[in-house]
Amino acid sequence: MARIVQKFGGTSVADIERIRNVALKVKAEVDAGNEVAVVVSAMGGVTDRLVGYVREISPLYDAREYDAVVSSGELVTSGLLALALQAEGIEARSWQGWQIPIHTDDVHGKARITGIDSSDIEARMAAGQVAVVPGFQGIAPSNRITTLGRGGSDTSAVALAAALNADRCDIYTDVDGVYTADPRIVPRARKLARITYEEMLEMASQGAKVLQTRSVELAMKERVHLQVRSSFDDAPGTLLVDEGEIVENVLVSGITYNRDEAKVTLTGLGDRPGVAAAVFGPLADANINVDMIVQGASEDAERADMTFTVSRADLGKAKEVLEGIRKDVTFREIVADPNVVKVSVIGVGMRSHAGVAQQMFSTLAEKGINIHVISTSEIKVSVLISEDYAELALRALHTAYGLDSDD
Amino acid sequence: MARIVQKFGGTSVADIERIRNVALKVKAEVDAGNEVAVVVSAMGGVTDRLVGYVREISPLYDAREYDAVVSSGELVTSGLLALALQAEGIEARSWQGWQIPIHTDDVHGKARITGIDSSDIEARMAAGQVAVVPGFQGIAPSNRITTLGRGGSDTSAVALAAALNADRCDIYTDVDGVYTADPRIVPRARKLARITYEEMLEMASQGAKVLQTRSVELAMKERVHLQVRSSFDDAPGTLLVDEGEIVENVLVSGITYNRDEAKVTLTGLGDRPGVAAAVFGPLADANINVDMIVQGASEDAERADMTFTVSRADLGKAKEVLEGIRKDVTFREIVADPNVVKVSVIGVGMRSHAGVAQQMFSTLAEKGINIHVISTSEIKVSVLISEDYAELALRALHTAYGLDSDD
Repeated sequence: MARIVQKFGGTSVADIERIRNVALKVKAEVDAGNEVAVVVSAMGGVTDRLVGYVREISPLYDAREYDAVVSSGELVTSGLLALALQAEGIEARSWQGWQIPIHTDDVHGKARITGIDSSDIEARMAAGQVAVVPGFQGIAPSNRITTLGRGGSDTSAVALAAALNADRCDIYTDVDGVYTADPRIVPRARKLARITYEEMLEMASQGAKVLQTRSVELAMKERVHLQVRSSFDDAPGTLLVDEGEIVENVLVSGITYNRDEAKVTLTGLGDRPGVAAAVFGPLADANINVDMIVQGASEDAERADMTFTVSRADLGKAKEVLEGIRKDVTFREIVADPNVVKVSVIGVGMRSHAGVAQQMFSTLAEKGINIHVISTSEIKVSVLISEDYAELALRALHTAYGLDSDD
Repeated sequence: MARIVQKFGGTSVADIERIRNVALKVKAEVDAGNEVAVVVSAMGGVTDRLVGYVREISPLYDAREYDAVVSSGELVTSGLLALALQAEGIEARSWQGWQIPIHTDDVHGKARITGIDSSDIEARMAAGQVAVVPGFQGIAPSNRITTLGRGGSDTSAVALAAALNADRCDIYTDVDGVYTADPRIVPRARKLARITYEEMLEMASQGAKVLQTRSVELAMKERVHLQVRSSFDDAPGTLLVDEGEIVENVLVSGITYNRDEAKVTLTGLGDRPGVAAAVFGPLADANINVDMIVQGASEDAERADMTFTVSRADLGKAKEVLEGIRKDVTFREIVADPNVVKVSVIGVGMRSHAGVAQQMFSTLAEKGINIHVISTSEIKVSVLISEDYAELALRALHTAYGLDSDD
């Protein structure tokens, strides 16, 4: 007997027929003698509709009311799944976030779970009852509803698995695992049987959409045995593991891309101590995240060009903020380019092997692809290139690192 | 300064534009210096869709999960209305049923409110904040969500008005008040400026859809100053008052009809002591409500015919139950007729004036309308007639009792 948390995303519970299908996947675990808790997302499209309502009423909305509204979709699916399980003869009940309760901090719209009082749920699970829990939400110290950010149900599932000391946390989704690259772009991408927490974290941060980044962080910290698998077939998925459990010796596990990047260059920037703080402080104050940063020399020894990336949605606001700092910082002009993409190669093998970055640069050079910005971490190399070359770069790198499947 | 509860039904909050319109109606009360709490229904059609999901999954559903699912629509509208109020510069927040809390008994699907802890809401209202409260729901002693039955938001509003000692409870709906008869059938029906609680209670029970019966009972018991008015114009509505506040001396205030009736006759019923209990006990056990009952003599002194009405939806089940009692009760046959309608004339003036029933019978006789069953109460006379004559009967009675408007 094992204790298992299963999580089903929006496409897996998109209609009544699919909710019945989910009930069968839960039943299979119950029939195998396991204690089961299930975390569900809202029916596909529901949360988008609710977010749309909020934005239509008030572009500058009160995040507490946003949370009260957008958290309702998961309440519906958890009740419906409990009913579908009962219809299959499985004892089950839904728990709303405040009934458990799931405690979070008070950062509405992107709250973090601070604790789950799982004693009631554990007692019911031990008595054979399946617990169905709405993902994406909890309650703040003020007792108001909070939400965890889009994709937050993954984090709900991991946090519940940690609280319950679950033997496994299975994330059911509309893909059947984690791939070496997006198969829609790289047809020869392979499904990974295993991936380390660290690699998965980099992949999620660098654009792979399969898991919410925060959920991977939490799984890594709490050592939750996370598996990504498909709601629509029974094939084994991808298991998140510690580095020691990876037997194959590969340099690169996956290649990701992120189109949500825009490049900004400040030319002829007066190069004095404190200039970086003078540029990035006001951007941070305006809640604009800056990602890749490179500072290059120009002909003038006193002046340099500084290039960095922001998300495309923030580009307009970033330009405004930068125009506003001309009184403190001298520069010639702001050159903005939204048509860029960040491509990253990721693998824990880089720690012990040199040459991974070099292979990336030479592969891109052979294809005539110009690199705008480079950034690296211990297990990742990212480059910013023109968006036009995204697909070509991904396929070339996938082949160069020996990731292509045989068929 | 007054303390006011406003309630808006599903058609009044059917889309974002209408929710903005509701915000303006609330703003008008705030601008007039009043403390305001608002009770809202789900957006029109939402609750029906959720009920449909539940029934699709499980015809014999767990009422606790039904409540968890169908209560979610009101959470959405209360958050959206709080946002719309904020957008108008009004301080406002939504309160979920458990946050207040609104306590109910544990009869899931048709719970009764047992108490509202209004202290937090009152403190916020006194500080100038509008409280937006989801109707239709509360929490059981078990801490699970309950719902109050369809139309239950009216009852939520009245209960909140009672808890807050509100000076007024305004029910905004898609009609502009209570009419002497349904204006779709009786074009010369008039809007009533005032109606007594007792009359409104009879009208709601006898088929007028404007208020949930339970809300009128509660308003009568708690002496809540209830007003029914339109969301879509500013005309005064209908005020519920004590009998002493009615100045006009009218015999009949309104005429209602209810098509949800089916007639059942047991012919040749063995007439012995206890036969009524033997017939109606099993029907009650099967949760079938019996309304009008009449027992008539037949040629045989030992045998009689018994006629009564049940709701149309229960007719099939009622026939089954009655076939099952043949071992205890002798009768010849079960004659069922679903094509009947109950027409009722209602007025507190009947208490002091004879002849109201007689006028009803003679008016129907003049039009050649046969009466199947008659039942009366202190302020009401109801007759069961063939459904074909419903419109004719309503218009003839409306004229006979002098209710027609002049235009």
